[in-house]
Amino acid sequence: MNIGIVGLGLIGGSLALDFKAQGHQVFGVSRREDTCRQAIARGVVADASSHMNLMAAAEVVFICTPIAAIVPTVTQLIPHLAPTAVVTDVGSVKAPIVQSVSQLWANFVGGHPMSGTAEQGLAAAQPNLFVGNPYVLTPTTSTPDTAIQLVEALVRSLKSQIFFCRPEDHDRAVAWISHLPVMVSASLISACLSESDQTVLELAQSLASSGFRDSSRVGGGNPELGVMMAQHNRSAVLQSLQAYRHCLDHLISAIEQENWQALTTQFQQTQQARPKFVQ
Amino acid sequence: MNIGIVGLGLIGGSLALDFKAQGHQVFGVSRREDTCRQAIARGVVADASSHMNLMAAAEVVFICTPIAAIVPTVTQLIPHLAPTAVVTDVGSVKAPIVQSVSQLWANFVGGHPMSGTAEQGLAAAQPNLFVGNPYVLTPTTSTPDTAIQLVEALVRSLKSQIFFCRPEDHDRAVAWISHLPVMVSASLISACLSESDQTVLELAQSLASSGFRDSSRVGGGNPELGVMMAQHNRSAVLQSLQAYRHCLDHLISAIEQENWQALTTQFQQTQQARPKFVQ
Repeated sequence: MNIGIVGLGLIGGSLALDFKAQGHQVFGVSRREDTCRQAIARGVVADASSHMNLMAAAEVVFICTPIAAIVPTVTQLIPHLAPTAVVTDVGSVKAPIVQSVSQLWANFVGGHPMSGTAEQGLAAAQPNLFVGNPYVLTPTTSTPDTAIQLVEALVRSLKSQIFFCRPEDHDRAVAWISHLPVMVSASLISACLSESDQTVLELAQSLASSGFRDSSRVGGGNPELGVMMAQHNRSAVLQSLQAYRHCLDHLISAIEQENWQALTTQFQQTQQARPKFVQ
Repeated sequence: MNIGIVGLGLIGGSLALDFKAQGHQVFGVSRREDTCRQAIARGVVADASSHMNLMAAAEVVFICTPIAAIVPTVTQLIPHLAPTAVVTDVGSVKAPIVQSVSQLWANFVGGHPMSGTAEQGLAAAQPNLFVGNPYVLTPTTSTPDTAIQLVEALVRSLKSQIFFCRPEDHDRAVAWISHLPVMVSASLISACLSESDQTVLELAQSLASSGFRDSSRVGGGNPELGVMMAQHNRSAVLQSLQAYRHCLDHLISAIEQENWQALTTQFQQTQQARPKFVQ
């Protein structure tokens, strides 16, 4: 099959490596000539270009740009596409993208491979990145079956764990387990920084161990990623933050009132619930 | 040296193992006869008993009971102590303990070894548990120098990293980096459980990965431990929770107002600050 990849970063490059290894013809587009040269040199793709016309022969195109560039990229891509070509994306938020892109190109299936590494860019691309990890597909009632089947078959060939859901449900689910943790964790670090007594702050820095390390990890990550989550999944992130604030207030109030039974009950519930999220 | 350990759990048992290996005479007291028998059988102590009179020959006694039992235990211990005996404890909150115990026994040095495992009890005790980990000592201006020097020398022999500070500063520091993360992390799990749409909740449970795993770890731990932190370090925990809530509100407000510059600045600060806590 002729497969196009637009955006040759970690995800695009890793998809290209896997599809090429399966014997597909893989073509890549990157804005940067330098990335195109590297992709060809590393054997990630059969050919690469900064021009969308390389996508003319593609039967399916994966849009692997940063999330803000997905809709503009599809707009640029459309004049070069074969009429039967299927388009899919790898954006980490789905409802706004699916809504916009579906209107531009009917043969579109929203996707979100939930694989990542700390590293970014083509240099970090690796084979088998998607094996065993969730890959969410968000077709709508108007998505053609043929398009869904084609994308599903390719994703299955990556040995991903496929989930089908509505774009809105995806966005609410990732708000809970991916975006809210970033906001909660960043606020933890911010709160510690508010300590005005330098002796206490330095002592806290010296004594912090695995509990703080784990709790603060996603809040101390790439600022652009955190802002992207809030910008593109704003409504679901705000809903999850309001619910979180309510739970936090409940906990603070239990401690203020020395209602240790209520606090015990809350901790028992969280202890019992966590394994359902982290099997 | 004759060393007494009252409370033969993870910490007491591990201290006993290390001191015995150094050639000290180590005696243990546990409320449970069964624990005493196990401690002798495993060679953790030279002798063990459920009676405090075993502590009569001790030059120093480590109180290693759960935090709520420390003051009552010292009260029971005192009639059996030699007048020159030094007492220290391993409680994770210091100000209320130091204040109470200092009035009962002048030769007292508050301590907090910050070593732990997921396991509890004598069976989990292990040699070298304290190597390289922080061990906080909180003498006051009225603590005799001889008592401080004796405890410091023993703690140093464990190859711990020793920190000296005021009991109140210890409690504020651990509120930030140990107790607040538990409250923040538990509230994260509680918030996710508030999702009323079962489809979204199950999807969130399926999609949760390392970010959620790390952020939720300490909030899904032992409920008794979380309640103990709130009960015994209530004032510092509430102060840190109020500061946290303020930072969270700031973040929510930035997202509500789409003030992406403010949000970027906050995430840049947290990214920059985290390495100071997790060297």
